[in-house]
Amino acid sequence: MIDKNTLIETLNLGIKKNKSDAVCFKIPVKASVALITTKNKFAAAPVLLSRENIQKKKPRYLLVNSGNANACTGKKGADNAKECASYISKKLNCKKEEVLLFSTGIIGQQLPIKKISSAINLHDFKFKSTWKSAAKSIMTTDKFHKYINKNIVIKGVKVSIEAICKGAGMIEPNMATMLSFISIDIKLSKKALTKILKKSAESSFNRISVDGDMSTNDCVLMIASGKDSKINFESDNYAYNILEKEMISICQDLSRMIIKDGEGATKVIQIEILKAANLTQAKKVAYTIANSNLIKTAMYGSDPNWGRIIAKLGSIDSVKYNPNKISLKINNCRVFEKGVQPKKFNITKLNKLMKKKEISIEINLNNGKNSFSLLTSDLTKAYVHINSAYTS
Amino acid sequence: MIDKNTLIETLNLGIKKNKSDAVCFKIPVKASVALITTKNKFAAAPVLLSRENIQKKKPRYLLVNSGNANACTGKKGADNAKECASYISKKLNCKKEEVLLFSTGIIGQQLPIKKISSAINLHDFKFKSTWKSAAKSIMTTDKFHKYINKNIVIKGVKVSIEAICKGAGMIEPNMATMLSFISIDIKLSKKALTKILKKSAESSFNRISVDGDMSTNDCVLMIASGKDSKINFESDNYAYNILEKEMISICQDLSRMIIKDGEGATKVIQIEILKAANLTQAKKVAYTIANSNLIKTAMYGSDPNWGRIIAKLGSIDSVKYNPNKISLKINNCRVFEKGVQPKKFNITKLNKLMKKKEISIEINLNNGKNSFSLLTSDLTKAYVHINSAYTS
Repeated sequence: MIDKNTLIETLNLGIKKNKSDAVCFKIPVKASVALITTKNKFAAAPVLLSRENIQKKKPRYLLVNSGNANACTGKKGADNAKECASYISKKLNCKKEEVLLFSTGIIGQQLPIKKISSAINLHDFKFKSTWKSAAKSIMTTDKFHKYINKNIVIKGVKVSIEAICKGAGMIEPNMATMLSFISIDIKLSKKALTKILKKSAESSFNRISVDGDMSTNDCVLMIASGKDSKINFESDNYAYNILEKEMISICQDLSRMIIKDGEGATKVIQIEILKAANLTQAKKVAYTIANSNLIKTAMYGSDPNWGRIIAKLGSIDSVKYNPNKISLKINNCRVFEKGVQPKKFNITKLNKLMKKKEISIEINLNNGKNSFSLLTSDLTKAYVHINSAYTS
Repeated sequence: MIDKNTLIETLNLGIKKNKSDAVCFKIPVKASVALITTKNKFAAAPVLLSRENIQKKKPRYLLVNSGNANACTGKKGADNAKECASYISKKLNCKKEEVLLFSTGIIGQQLPIKKISSAINLHDFKFKSTWKSAAKSIMTTDKFHKYINKNIVIKGVKVSIEAICKGAGMIEPNMATMLSFISIDIKLSKKALTKILKKSAESSFNRISVDGDMSTNDCVLMIASGKDSKINFESDNYAYNILEKEMISICQDLSRMIIKDGEGATKVIQIEILKAANLTQAKKVAYTIANSNLIKTAMYGSDPNWGRIIAKLGSIDSVKYNPNKISLKINNCRVFEKGVQPKKFNITKLNKLMKKKEISIEINLNNGKNSFSLLTSDLTKAYVHINSAYTS
């Protein structure tokens, strides 16, 4: 029997005690696989190996572990990654280049390679686990698992999409500290799938920031199962556009889950930059505002301290605008325009709006035609607590 | 009688209740005054006025208030600043352009101008307050006042330096959120004094960061009293060099006090970047590391999580180096070299070192000849507490 869609096996590799700490994905024979990875210069051993292997062969299996990132682990880390791939290849009877690896967890520690060897060797792979259990197995500091299953009908063809991701801290693009695996049960070339992946990531995973820290292990992988249907998604523009829109929407939903689960986060904050001279400047402002601790703590305290936003904006040297033409809205309430707080400003109303769990900060630079939006979370005592006691 | 050095009057302007919230400095007639101010595009009304006035006239009085920054206050804020200057000029009998203004505190609120008017009008100015009381009067979220008095002897001439500053949050250069006033009882031209001020600030106030947020109100002002002595500090290279060295050292001591008092801070962290291709790249790395929340929280938790430092370094796109040639030391303990944790690495030793109140992080990029160092503080629950409840 040929698998119609990606199958799942969750297992324990001995990295975490007495709970599932890994997922093995079985990719259908006819599938296409597209991958984007972190741009961090210290990309982890599994990332380097996966980048290499996907160039050589079409992947058959993915092995994802949580609890150890196998990053900054030098030659031994690279050797360990190769070992893991060969354990899977021997056990499941494929070439070792047909295995991709993904790791998330603590940086700088070597994998417990003997435990992993015997765990894979002894495990009875049935590939009957659920995507939901996979989402749980790859969690690290995540408070909740992140799983989306969506069934859509395009021109009478039922398309099923399964998607998971993990991520809570060390979140800022290219990629965020996160892993995501998304499978669609349709036929699509690697080229078309890669195009959809890049476009989806650009307007989702690459537009979030929890703490401005980019990870060594981020990866997003998409699988198109290769299942035949009466639609050719590549030649049928209408169907392709619907599919692409759905994939972008799923990636945005996953991204929002990551921000909602931002380490210690109590609020999801949307930063919207309007009318910048160019996209680079819009992005620069959005990230600078998103990563300001004074702004993030004010949001946590439901504190309408808009002066911090203006002060932060003013500190950005490389972005051009006229300070007297800036306007700032918080949850659609005008708090600053023409260089001053508007006369109609109602602090009681704003105080109420600040208590919402979703906050929007809109800055209009009035200096061009380019916009950019970004999701971030607030900075809380819980964030400090989680991150001051991570390894120890 | 002509004043030999700057005199001080602390007073209450009615911004804070029942405690001194302002300082008036009386500058000797023969003094030179040098000023540097924030580069923030939303520089506060008092900053704009002081920049203008110092171009027109030699300052006779400085009025510094805490509790209200008079920033982002539009035309009314500018008018209020002018009003304050004219109250002082009328009361103390000078031209209004001879008054400089400095404010620190909450952004976006108008000054209580009627209270200030009557407070200045009714106050009995004696100019017999101490510099220490001035340091106390300009505190906002500062936990301790910052005051240095140093007497040095250069070629038999006694030189007395009085220096104060304030600052705890919204600290990152050009300038940091801070005010500093320094007076020397010697004769020096404005040009020479400005040169010393710029050089001192560059290697002190411009090398600190608490939270990466640049304020709208930062100012450092130096006064040379004009007192005659047997040394001409401008033509005597030897004396000038000693003086300059002392001034740099005092500014560095003041800067260290600000970092030590960083909002919620428990540690002073020195970031040292060695062998960068150029100074821009060294600075970029230093600030990026200094402003990483994951690194700052790890320091707070005395957590030797060096992987976060390497991951942050790897995320900087614009800086060139060979990842395999990077070395990282924490408190002089090698934790990363040649792409991996060294074999001799002793975690027990590092764990002990992490508990110190002063932490040094040294990154050698091995890619050039340029170095840069920076002071920062850790990120603590207290920081979040202070900043999530500032206005409300």
